[in-house]
Amino acid sequence: MRYVRYSTSDSVGYGRLDGDAVIPLATDFLVSTEETSDRFPLEEVELLAPVLPPNILAIGLNYRAHAKETNAEYPKAPVLFIKANTSVIGPGERIVLPKLAPDEVDYEAELAVVIGKAARNVSPEDALDYVFGYTCANDVSARDAQLRIDKQWARGKSFDTFCPLGPWIETDFDPANATVICRLNGKVMQDSNTSDLIFSAPELISYLSHCMTILPGTVIITGTPGGVGFTRKPPVFLRPGDTVEIEIGGVGVLTNPVV
Amino acid sequence: MRYVRYSTSDSVGYGRLDGDAVIPLATDFLVSTEETSDRFPLEEVELLAPVLPPNILAIGLNYRAHAKETNAEYPKAPVLFIKANTSVIGPGERIVLPKLAPDEVDYEAELAVVIGKAARNVSPEDALDYVFGYTCANDVSARDAQLRIDKQWARGKSFDTFCPLGPWIETDFDPANATVICRLNGKVMQDSNTSDLIFSAPELISYLSHCMTILPGTVIITGTPGGVGFTRKPPVFLRPGDTVEIEIGGVGVLTNPVV
Repeated sequence: MRYVRYSTSDSVGYGRLDGDAVIPLATDFLVSTEETSDRFPLEEVELLAPVLPPNILAIGLNYRAHAKETNAEYPKAPVLFIKANTSVIGPGERIVLPKLAPDEVDYEAELAVVIGKAARNVSPEDALDYVFGYTCANDVSARDAQLRIDKQWARGKSFDTFCPLGPWIETDFDPANATVICRLNGKVMQDSNTSDLIFSAPELISYLSHCMTILPGTVIITGTPGGVGFTRKPPVFLRPGDTVEIEIGGVGVLTNPVV
Repeated sequence: MRYVRYSTSDSVGYGRLDGDAVIPLATDFLVSTEETSDRFPLEEVELLAPVLPPNILAIGLNYRAHAKETNAEYPKAPVLFIKANTSVIGPGERIVLPKLAPDEVDYEAELAVVIGKAARNVSPEDALDYVFGYTCANDVSARDAQLRIDKQWARGKSFDTFCPLGPWIETDFDPANATVICRLNGKVMQDSNTSDLIFSAPELISYLSHCMTILPGTVIITGTPGGVGFTRKPPVFLRPGDTVEIEIGGVGVLTNPVV
């Protein structure tokens, strides 16, 4: 099933996609997926970020190829950082290069896990029972702020518009084996598979749930594979007019222009 | 004025303190401070964390004495990290030493700024216009997770119960000159003044607002002064049965037991 959050000219709602139609739900799908008897064409609504997360729990250095390209050792435990939830935008919305750090803004294709019910001290075996579904994420990062100016990654990854999510949440999905692709202006920059993750989605959920209560709606972005811009020679950074596409196989494509 | 969030046997509400009485408000004080005609004794309610922040923006190494004791250079810009908002507890609630990292849990007395209206690109001169008020914070930190196991501070500072806030929000307060004290089992461990801050409250609000939209209810914890436990010889860490008090002069005292 594919679930969306959308706006019309006068309201915001939740719905289930059925081909090219949206079936509105009675309420937020995190509360209930009860459907209404209404139905209208997808083209009549604007898709929004499918979830407004209470926290964005982000994992660094979680693909072998990305750890290698940044000269980092494989982590012994998941590396957590947190993105401000004010950085979320939806499909089609613009990634804005920030005035404070416009020059080294980079893309990061990531599988995003959307938690469906509060998780605390859950085992890896049970972890996927706490997932509502999956979506595409772009962990946009201002590398100068993240790596040279600051001692912590939080600011460089929390500028407004730095967390595109969408276009919808797919509930029928195997997180252990999915392609993760980033295209910049149509050119493939990252092309990997979640099977290369050092810590799998259920391992991450279990680990984090032993640190904190993971609330419904929380988004866990699971790390990015090799091929990011700042490790290329010469480096590649986002420029006004660019278009970034994040594709997760079995979920869909998240497209955002850069301004 | 002092504003509180409280629970009774059957509800949660917002109120203004008037001596030993609570005057209930019509709604959340971030929306309106309109008062009802009701009034009841403070002892009949339980005070809760005075705000549930959308984001907790935390500043590291922001007192000269604390930067020195950790052998860190004075930062050239504020050092941002983010605590998961699930770590918030209220006055009197228990700080739980986490099973994953129980041995090196430390206290950090901090002045907390509670944002009252959305702030984006505001100047230091205008920054305090965006503040609703101030409260006491304890930036509880598992030093092993924060400093040795992880490359980032987020996890070691985001365990459940690691962000005590309260007991209330004081709106008549000068953040430029206030004592910041931590007492552990009655013994003074930190005793400083916000005049020793490297980046002042209005400078922090302005800087952060140039990075992101700071939503109403956001809590900015402004850094801790010298005297934390892990830099002492021998180190001092929180143990079950301890009581930690955070006192901000002109605001009040936030007290939490440790279990």
